[in-house]
Amino acid sequence: MGGSYAARLKELGYTVYGFDKDQQALDYALNNQMIDQSCLNPADLLGKCDLVIFCLYPTKIADWIKTNHNFFKKDVFLMEISGVKSSIVNELRQAADELSMVSVHPMCGRESKGIQFSSPEIFSGSNFIIIDDGSIPKGHIELSRMLAAEMGFGKISVLSADEHDRMIAFLSQLTHVIAVCLMNTHENSHLVEYTGDSFRDLTRIARINESMWPELFLLNKDILLEEIEAFEAAISHFKKALENNDRKEMSSLMVESTRRRELFDK
Amino acid sequence: MGGSYAARLKELGYTVYGFDKDQQALDYALNNQMIDQSCLNPADLLGKCDLVIFCLYPTKIADWIKTNHNFFKKDVFLMEISGVKSSIVNELRQAADELSMVSVHPMCGRESKGIQFSSPEIFSGSNFIIIDDGSIPKGHIELSRMLAAEMGFGKISVLSADEHDRMIAFLSQLTHVIAVCLMNTHENSHLVEYTGDSFRDLTRIARINESMWPELFLLNKDILLEEIEAFEAAISHFKKALENNDRKEMSSLMVESTRRRELFDK
Repeated sequence: MGGSYAARLKELGYTVYGFDKDQQALDYALNNQMIDQSCLNPADLLGKCDLVIFCLYPTKIADWIKTNHNFFKKDVFLMEISGVKSSIVNELRQAADELSMVSVHPMCGRESKGIQFSSPEIFSGSNFIIIDDGSIPKGHIELSRMLAAEMGFGKISVLSADEHDRMIAFLSQLTHVIAVCLMNTHENSHLVEYTGDSFRDLTRIARINESMWPELFLLNKDILLEEIEAFEAAISHFKKALENNDRKEMSSLMVESTRRRELFDK
Repeated sequence: MGGSYAARLKELGYTVYGFDKDQQALDYALNNQMIDQSCLNPADLLGKCDLVIFCLYPTKIADWIKTNHNFFKKDVFLMEISGVKSSIVNELRQAADELSMVSVHPMCGRESKGIQFSSPEIFSGSNFIIIDDGSIPKGHIELSRMLAAEMGFGKISVLSADEHDRMIAFLSQLTHVIAVCLMNTHENSHLVEYTGDSFRDLTRIARINESMWPELFLLNKDILLEEIEAFEAAISHFKKALENNDRKEMSSLMVESTRRRELFDK
C-alpha cells in the first residue's frame, strides 16, 4: 500500500518522500520514479512533510509516532490507513498528542505483498472510509475527502470505528477466513486441471499475507468470531436441509441468496 | 445449456433441431437462429437426428428416453451432460438399452437460467469430462472428444463416475453451498456500498438456479456431505486458532493456503 500510495501521489504531482527500514524497497521506489527522495532515518526528512501517510502494520504505528514525535512539523497532517480501527484509534490519537491525526481505510489492495506489486491504479473507483466517532474536526474530514477524491477513489464515506469494524469483519475478514479454509479443506493439487471459475473466485484471496492478516484478525477478534459463528450456523442449517433431503428448504435458501446477491451486482 | 449447445452447433454448420416443452423457448431459439427447426412433439423430428444431446434435469432423462425410445434412429448417438454421474449413469444406460449412450460434463454455464442467457461462447477453453468406468466403447469416447474439440473446449479428460462426482463435490458443489451460506449469514443490504471485490467474488455464484442445484446436491448427497464436513472442520480449526490468539497457527494456515492456491493460478 505504501508503494501504491507513493506512486499515485507522485503521479498527481506531489513531492513524495519514502520512509522505510528496507533500503531495497526504497531503491526500488526511487528507480521506478515512485518517490522523489528516500529516507532510512526519519529525522532527515520528516520535518519537510505536510502530510504523513502510515502504511505500517497497525500495532507499529503508535510507537513510530512516539519515537519520531519531535521531528514532525507542528501543522503536519497524519493519516493512518489500517484495516481495523476500534482497537487502535485511541492509542494513535494519544501518540499523536496535539498533532492532527485521522484514521481512514482505503478499501483496495493486492493479494501479494511487496513494493514490486504496488500500482498507482488500485485506488481508482474503490471505496474510501473516513473514521469519525464525532470528535474529528470537520476540516480534517474534508481534507481526507478531497485527497481521496483527487486520488480517484469512488464512494467516500464516514463511519464510526465500530461500524467500520463490523462491516470489515463480514465483508473482508470473514471472506478471507473462508477462502483460506476452503483451500485447506483437503489436498487438492490433483484437481487443478478441472478447476473452473467458481473455485478460482472463491479462493483468489487464499493467497494472503500471512504476517498482516493474523494481526488484523486479532485486532478485531471478538467481532470476527461472531461473524465466523454466524457463518457456521448458516452452513450447519444448509447441511441439515441436505441431510433431511429437504429440497424445498435448500431451494428457498437459494431464492434468498439470489435475491440478496442481486443488490450486490455492480 | 440447451440454448448454448444449439447456438454453438448451429454456428459450426450443423443442422440443429430444438426439442422443448416450452413453445416460447423454441420460438426464441428459432428467431435467434439458434436452431433450424423447433419441435414440441419428439415424434416429429427425433428420427432425423444422428446425435441427441440431453440438456435436461438429470432425473428427467431416463423417462424421456424410455417414452421416446421408438422414435430414435437405430444408430443414434445419445449424449447427456448432467452435473452428477454415479447416481444416474446406470439407469440411463438401461433406458438407452441397445442405443449408444455417453455421459459427459461440459464444465461451463451461466448463473442465470433461461434461453435468453444462453451463448455459443461459454464453451471456449472450458474443461470437458467424458465419463468412462471402463465399459464405454473407444469409438464413443473418440466421437465425444472430437465434438468437444470442435466446439472449442479446452482440456478434455476421461474420468470414472466416482472420480467425477468427488471432484465436482469439492470444486463446484461445496463452493456453491459456501456462497449461498455466506450470502445468507445475516442481513447485509446496508453493506452494499462498502463491498469490494473479495465479497463479490465469494458470492457471485450465490445467484443460483434454485430448481436445479438442490437436485444435483441430492444426487451427490453423501459425497457432498463429506466435503461440507471437511470444510466445517477447517473453519473450526481456524476459529480455534483465533480464539487462542494463536498467531503462529493462523499464519501457517495462510502459508499453506497461499502455497496451494499458487497451483490454481491460470
